[in-house]
Amino acid sequence: MEFTRLNETHKKELKSMVAPDRFSTGDSNLDLHSRDQSHHEAFRPEAVIWPVSGDEVSAILKYANQHLIPVTGWGAGTSLEGNPIPIKAGLVLDFSQMNHILSVREEDFQVDVEPGIDYKTLNEALRHKGLFFPPDPGASATIGGMIANNASGTRTVRYGSTKDHVLRLSVVLADGEMIEMGTRASKTSSGYDLIHLFVGSEGTLGIVVQATLHLTGLPEEFSAAVVTFPSVEVAGKAVFGIIRSGLDPAMLELLAPECVDLMNREKGLGLDVSPTLLVEFHGPTKTQLADVMEIAREICQEEDCFEFRPALGREERDQLLKARHELGEMLRRNHPDRLTMAMDVAVPITAYPELIAMARKETRNAGVPAYVFGHAGDGNIHVALMRKAEDQRETEIIEGVSHRIVEKALSMDGTATGEHGVGIGKRKYMETEHGRSLEWMKKIKAVFDPNGILNPGKVFP
Amino acid sequence: MEFTRLNETHKKELKSMVAPDRFSTGDSNLDLHSRDQSHHEAFRPEAVIWPVSGDEVSAILKYANQHLIPVTGWGAGTSLEGNPIPIKAGLVLDFSQMNHILSVREEDFQVDVEPGIDYKTLNEALRHKGLFFPPDPGASATIGGMIANNASGTRTVRYGSTKDHVLRLSVVLADGEMIEMGTRASKTSSGYDLIHLFVGSEGTLGIVVQATLHLTGLPEEFSAAVVTFPSVEVAGKAVFGIIRSGLDPAMLELLAPECVDLMNREKGLGLDVSPTLLVEFHGPTKTQLADVMEIAREICQEEDCFEFRPALGREERDQLLKARHELGEMLRRNHPDRLTMAMDVAVPITAYPELIAMARKETRNAGVPAYVFGHAGDGNIHVALMRKAEDQRETEIIEGVSHRIVEKALSMDGTATGEHGVGIGKRKYMETEHGRSLEWMKKIKAVFDPNGILNPGKVFP
Repeated sequence: MEFTRLNETHKKELKSMVAPDRFSTGDSNLDLHSRDQSHHEAFRPEAVIWPVSGDEVSAILKYANQHLIPVTGWGAGTSLEGNPIPIKAGLVLDFSQMNHILSVREEDFQVDVEPGIDYKTLNEALRHKGLFFPPDPGASATIGGMIANNASGTRTVRYGSTKDHVLRLSVVLADGEMIEMGTRASKTSSGYDLIHLFVGSEGTLGIVVQATLHLTGLPEEFSAAVVTFPSVEVAGKAVFGIIRSGLDPAMLELLAPECVDLMNREKGLGLDVSPTLLVEFHGPTKTQLADVMEIAREICQEEDCFEFRPALGREERDQLLKARHELGEMLRRNHPDRLTMAMDVAVPITAYPELIAMARKETRNAGVPAYVFGHAGDGNIHVALMRKAEDQRETEIIEGVSHRIVEKALSMDGTATGEHGVGIGKRKYMETEHGRSLEWMKKIKAVFDPNGILNPGKVFP
Repeated sequence: MEFTRLNETHKKELKSMVAPDRFSTGDSNLDLHSRDQSHHEAFRPEAVIWPVSGDEVSAILKYANQHLIPVTGWGAGTSLEGNPIPIKAGLVLDFSQMNHILSVREEDFQVDVEPGIDYKTLNEALRHKGLFFPPDPGASATIGGMIANNASGTRTVRYGSTKDHVLRLSVVLADGEMIEMGTRASKTSSGYDLIHLFVGSEGTLGIVVQATLHLTGLPEEFSAAVVTFPSVEVAGKAVFGIIRSGLDPAMLELLAPECVDLMNREKGLGLDVSPTLLVEFHGPTKTQLADVMEIAREICQEEDCFEFRPALGREERDQLLKARHELGEMLRRNHPDRLTMAMDVAVPITAYPELIAMARKETRNAGVPAYVFGHAGDGNIHVALMRKAEDQRETEIIEGVSHRIVEKALSMDGTATGEHGVGIGKRKYMETEHGRSLEWMKKIKAVFDPNGILNPGKVFP
C-alpha cells in the first residue's frame, strides 16, 4: 500500500477540522510522537492532532481514508513494543485532551471514560467511592492505550486483564463511521463479541473514543510479604506452588537480584539482594489472610526460601509496589547511554520454572546489562536487555537472546506477548504462534480497514 | 441464498465420509434433531451425521460448502431460543460421539475436550482433582453448545460465563479449513482475539471440534441460605443490595412463589411459598463465610425479608440446587399440553428491581401460566410463558409480554439475551441493541461463511 504524504492542502484541511492550536507540524511535537518507551527506531509523523470529540476523530479518519493518509492513535507513549510509533508517517491522534471521566455509575460498578485518561488518575478519582479499575500496567498508561494493547500487570493474576473489564466501546472506524458496541448488562449472549475483537487490536481496526469499564470493589484487607530465595529458578518453583494451591494471590511478582539491587539503590529499600517474590493477598478479614499467608509460607519454605517476611505495613507495601512500578524508568535512568528492550512472553504456569531457568542462563551469558522480572503468577516473564544505540554487535546479542526466549515460550504452548502487544517487535512470531488463524485475522483487518490506514506496519508480519 | 436439497448422490457421498451407522436420514433421527427445548417451530434436517473427528467435520463442511448445503451443529438440544433448529434443513452434525476428555493438565488448571461432552460429566470427572468448569447452565448442555451460546448460569455471578474460561479452540470453517486459535498461557496480547469472536457465535462462523478450558479450584467451603420476601420486587432490591456490598456471592437465584410452589410439589422441598432468594457464598474458611452471611442477613432484613434461613447443610443445598436446575423440565412436565417460551434478558444491576416489578406486572395480567425466576446476581431474568401449541391468541399474548420485557431491558441499557443466545427469537432485537455495529457483525459473517451455510437463519434479522 502506497500512502500519501501530507501536502499543504491536506494540512490546511485537517487543521480546519480542529482548533488551530490542536494541530501541529512542529519539530518538537513530531519528535515527541516518534517513539514510545521501547528500543525501536523512532519515526516522526507528519502532523499531530489533539482531538476533543468522537466527531472530530470521525471527520479526520474519513478524510485520511479518502486520501490514504496513515493514522495512529497515541495515549501516553508508554508502550514497549513500538505499538504507537508511526512508522509510515501520516497523522498521530494524541488523546491527551480527551481525558475525562464522563460518568461514574457507582452502584453498577461502572465508569464511562474518554480514552486519554490515565489509569492512575482514574483510580485516584474512584478511590473514595471504594472502587478501582484493576489492570495495573505500572507505567502511566492511558485507558485507550490499555484497551489497544489489552494491558495487564501486577494485579492481573487475580483480577484479569483489560479485556475482562470492558463493557462498551465507541469506536471510530477507518472510514470515519462511529459504532457503539457492548451493553451495560454484566453478561450477554447477543451477537458477535466485537468488544473483544477491538480490545488488543492495537489501533489497527478502529480508534476507541469512549469506553465503559467494569470496576471492582477495593479489597477490605490486604496482606503482603517479601520472600527471598537462593536462586531465581527456585523462586519460579515457589510461584508454581502458590498458583497450584489455589490461594488466589492478588500479586505475585518475581524480581531477580539485579532488580532488587537497582531498587535498593534508587529507593533506599534495604532489601536483601537475592531473588525475590513480592506476594500479596486480598480478602475480607485479617484472620483469613493470616491463614492464607501461612500456607504461602509453607510452600516457600518447602522450596528452601532464605527468608519469608510477612505482615508488611501499608507504607512499606506501597513503597515496594511503587518501586516495582518504576523499575522500567530506573532501568532507563541507570543506563542513559543504552536503549531498553523489555521483552515479554507468557507460558502456562507448569512451564514457568523451566522458562525462568532458561532466561537466566541466557542473560548470564549475554554480556550486556540484563534484568529478569515478571508477573510470575500469570506465567509472564520480562527480560530487560540494554544495548548501546549504535552498537550492531550488542543489537545482535539482545535480539538473539530475545528470539530464543520467545521461541522457548512458544514451544511450551505459550504466547509471544503476554501484555506488551505485538507492535513492531513481535510481528515475526505471529505465523508461528497463530498458524493459519493469522490469515483470518488479516481478513478481519481487511474488512475494517481496507486501505490499511490504521496504525500500518503493526501486528502483522 | 438458495440452498441445495440433498439428492441421492449427496447422501451417498456424505455417507461415505463417515461410517455407515453414523449417517442417518431416518424419520426418528430427523425428528430428534428438529427442535430444542424452546417453543420455536420444529424443522427437520435432511440428514444427521455423527462425526468422530475434526477431519470428518472438515471433509463434510468442504463438501457442504461446495454444494450449498446448510450445516448446523448439535450438542444436546437443550437450548432455549431455537439456536440449533435446522430451519433451512440440510445437515445436522450431532457431536454426541465426540465427547471425550482428551487430557487434563491438572497443574495448569486446564482440560482439553471434544465439544460433545456435557458439562456435568466433565465436572464429575474433574471433581476428584479438586477442579471444576464453573459455568453452570442447569440443563445437560454440552461444552460445544455452551461455547456456541456463551452459556452461563447459577455460578456466573462469581465465576463468569463460558467466554471467560476458553483458552484455545480448534474450529472447522465453512470451507472445511481447520484453524487453531488461542494459547495455554493464562494471558496474551498477541493478535486479534478470535476466541471471543467464536464463543457465542452460535455455530454461524465455524464449528468447534476441540476446546481447551481453564478450570477453577473447587471452593474450600460454602455457605448457603434461603431467604423469603413479601414480594418479588422487594427481593430484587435485596439482590441489588448484596451485589452493591461487594460480598461476591457464588449464587444469587431469584424464584417467584409460583416457582417455589412447583419445586415443592415436584420435590417435596417444603419451602415457604413466597418470593425467595437462594444465596450462596464460597470462601476459604467457615468463619469468614459466617461473617459474610451475617452482612447478607442485615441487607435482607433491611428490606424486611420474611425469613433468613442460613447454614443449609450440603444435602439440603444440593437438593435445592438440583430442583432449581430441573425447573425448566418441571415446567414442561407440568404443562404437557403447552409450549414454553423461556425468555431471557439481562440489565445492569441498578435496573433489576424495576425490571422485576415490570415483569411481575406483565405476568400477573397475562392470563397464561407464567413463571418468573432468574440469575438475579447478574441482573438476568427469565420469564417462562406457557402457551397452547395451536392457540393463536395465547401466542400473541406471550409474544407481547416477551416483547415488552425485552424492550424494557434494552431501554435500560441491558441486553436482549443474557445467556440463551439470539437463535430465532431474538433476531428482531439485534438492530435495536447493536445499531450500526450489527452491519459489521454481518461483514464478519460474510468473511468466514460467504455462502451462508453455517446455521442459516440465526442471529441476524
